[in-house]
Amino acid sequence: MSHQKLLVKNARGHGQGVVNVLVREGVIMSVSADEPTTSDDVEVVDVGGDLLCPGLIDGHLHLDKTLIGLPWMPHSAGPTRQDRIKNDKSIMPTLPLSVEVRASNLVRQAITKGTTHMRSHVDVTNEVGLDSLHAVMKVREKFADAMEIQIVAFPQDGVVSSPGTIDLLESAIGEGAEFIGGIDPAVIDRDPVGQLDALFAAAERTGAGIDIHLHEPGELGNFNIVLICERAKALGMAGRVTVSHGFALGAINDATFDQTAALMAEAGVSVMTFGPGSSPMLPLKKLAVAGVRVFAGSDAIRDTWWPFGNGDMVERAQFIAYRVGYRRDDDIESTLDLATYAAADIMGFENYGLEPGCRADFVTLPAETLAEAIVDPKPRSLVIKNGRVLARNGVLEDGLS
Amino acid sequence: MSHQKLLVKNARGHGQGVVNVLVREGVIMSVSADEPTTSDDVEVVDVGGDLLCPGLIDGHLHLDKTLIGLPWMPHSAGPTRQDRIKNDKSIMPTLPLSVEVRASNLVRQAITKGTTHMRSHVDVTNEVGLDSLHAVMKVREKFADAMEIQIVAFPQDGVVSSPGTIDLLESAIGEGAEFIGGIDPAVIDRDPVGQLDALFAAAERTGAGIDIHLHEPGELGNFNIVLICERAKALGMAGRVTVSHGFALGAINDATFDQTAALMAEAGVSVMTFGPGSSPMLPLKKLAVAGVRVFAGSDAIRDTWWPFGNGDMVERAQFIAYRVGYRRDDDIESTLDLATYAAADIMGFENYGLEPGCRADFVTLPAETLAEAIVDPKPRSLVIKNGRVLARNGVLEDGLS
Repeated sequence: MSHQKLLVKNARGHGQGVVNVLVREGVIMSVSADEPTTSDDVEVVDVGGDLLCPGLIDGHLHLDKTLIGLPWMPHSAGPTRQDRIKNDKSIMPTLPLSVEVRASNLVRQAITKGTTHMRSHVDVTNEVGLDSLHAVMKVREKFADAMEIQIVAFPQDGVVSSPGTIDLLESAIGEGAEFIGGIDPAVIDRDPVGQLDALFAAAERTGAGIDIHLHEPGELGNFNIVLICERAKALGMAGRVTVSHGFALGAINDATFDQTAALMAEAGVSVMTFGPGSSPMLPLKKLAVAGVRVFAGSDAIRDTWWPFGNGDMVERAQFIAYRVGYRRDDDIESTLDLATYAAADIMGFENYGLEPGCRADFVTLPAETLAEAIVDPKPRSLVIKNGRVLARNGVLEDGLS
Repeated sequence: MSHQKLLVKNARGHGQGVVNVLVREGVIMSVSADEPTTSDDVEVVDVGGDLLCPGLIDGHLHLDKTLIGLPWMPHSAGPTRQDRIKNDKSIMPTLPLSVEVRASNLVRQAITKGTTHMRSHVDVTNEVGLDSLHAVMKVREKFADAMEIQIVAFPQDGVVSSPGTIDLLESAIGEGAEFIGGIDPAVIDRDPVGQLDALFAAAERTGAGIDIHLHEPGELGNFNIVLICERAKALGMAGRVTVSHGFALGAINDATFDQTAALMAEAGVSVMTFGPGSSPMLPLKKLAVAGVRVFAGSDAIRDTWWPFGNGDMVERAQFIAYRVGYRRDDDIESTLDLATYAAADIMGFENYGLEPGCRADFVTLPAETLAEAIVDPKPRSLVIKNGRVLARNGVLEDGLS
């Protein structure tokens, strides 16, 4: 943690005029139109009117899977999710760079984009055991001051069809992962109740939260979302259960949607979106009206699953806004909320924001307005984490290896 | 036109090794692995292994509508297309920058992205008359060596409901526009046959091509596409009629699609897509199988209709690939074809390509492969038009005012 003093001058707050942000010992001391008097030991950075934004939050990625740092690898899987799982298994052990190296590469890249917090799913399966978890935990330790990382122990192969996995997931929680993951209980495990009961029982035993990949379409996906909500409610897990993707919510009829959304709100089950291109998009406004909380993440970032993605949560907000057809500034700006305040609130990051007393985690965006920053993303002029400058103009500072 | 000699060294051809491109008097003389012997008067540019790509083609934009160069203007229209037309009319006359200045700004920006050819729709209505056309024609003249611009005379207000417009469209063709435009004959004119008969009659009288905006949904949009094909066929206009958008093609059932696509192929009617976010995406592979030709364009670029867009056809290819869910290199690369070879072929740009004898219109993309260039677009290292360097590393050369 930095004990430096820092003054960021000439930033523009959202809906405010020009402000100066004074930081000490990693905490925002003041945000004010007046320039504070400072002593010689204060580093002063003038951002020339760029927009102040709290540190970006990537609510869903896979640090262990990225290929960043390797030469371009053409996508080689067949068309189904099962093909991609199989392909992933055959390629990953052959890579010349370790999980630790590749995950570190992605963390560094995310820092240059202004990301200060993330939730990474990490494969925990009978094949890799806890190896990938250990590697990602090392990365978390290494970047402790630069990136807050939540870890989801992710049973990529399912749990019913892969006996022993539940024990591994519980071990992962014991070692420091915070969430039990899951995936498509019908398509992957062919047993919705079997997978979900096992996951929730493990969560109950360990005190972990839950974050389940749910790509399943239409009525099938909706059925499993309802099963998840019923279990979250029964165990009083409000606020600690997430459905990642939840494509089904964009594909069911209005009456079914209303029922499911009401149940999600009641059970305190949130949903994460990456703004899918070819799967149904979440109806964001309808979810908000129903009281369902939504946050955003990258999902795959240049890995064996998917060649797209670069960890930029401002571009992610753009995709989401584009995908739902937003045109108005307030609508477009609401998509960045999914990667800032809403995400912090749902994911439980504390002391988050731009008020005095908050952790000094913020980024400055070169643009006239937040909407412009989203529709035309430019390199971030400044990225600050725990009061320390980590990147300038899209380039990492020295010493972040 | 440039009479310079230019040697672009160390480019990589698609699927080839490193090549050197020799240009003289605006024409590609040779593309070869060997370095040609050159005299002192040859400008040599080393692109360090970047990928060679023919000049990008933007098949659909609105030069007269862009707000580029103005301070950010929040989107202020109501939710319907009619609201946006009304809003556009109230704002455009109040802008402090002329059509000529704004259109020039967009042309310059497009050049930095590697665009060398474009088709601009220009409003021709009873309100603006031919004023916007004249302004865009001036811009075309001014940038004659830097950008090839086709012009569509666009009846934004319809023709049946706006008497006198057809005469204006014909005058626009007489003055140098190449295409008669149109828009949603049912929704805007409430008279599909009335609008389409008028447009095709004007095209027949003037010898112009046709390019019709068709946003109409589902079966209604499909009905109008069929009407367009019937008229294109009757008049023998194969290859000279385009449906822009054609969202309906992504929303009708398979049997109806197959019938319409077969008719489009038979009539030689092409379709333009910008990769819409919240409207149905064209089924690109099914269109290709049916023999329907597709090309890509930006559509609105930061205007009163839509705040997104920057004229970058590589990013556009990315949106399209993302939207159709492509993962494989060959699929992803096919989206850039919609803004290069396919577009040139459909739009009738001659001497296009990277063969000796072609116009020296090309761009170099910093990436290992074309697929990587599309999923992770970077500033273009070099943009060449008519043998002249117009931009380097995303920055316009001096003197392109």
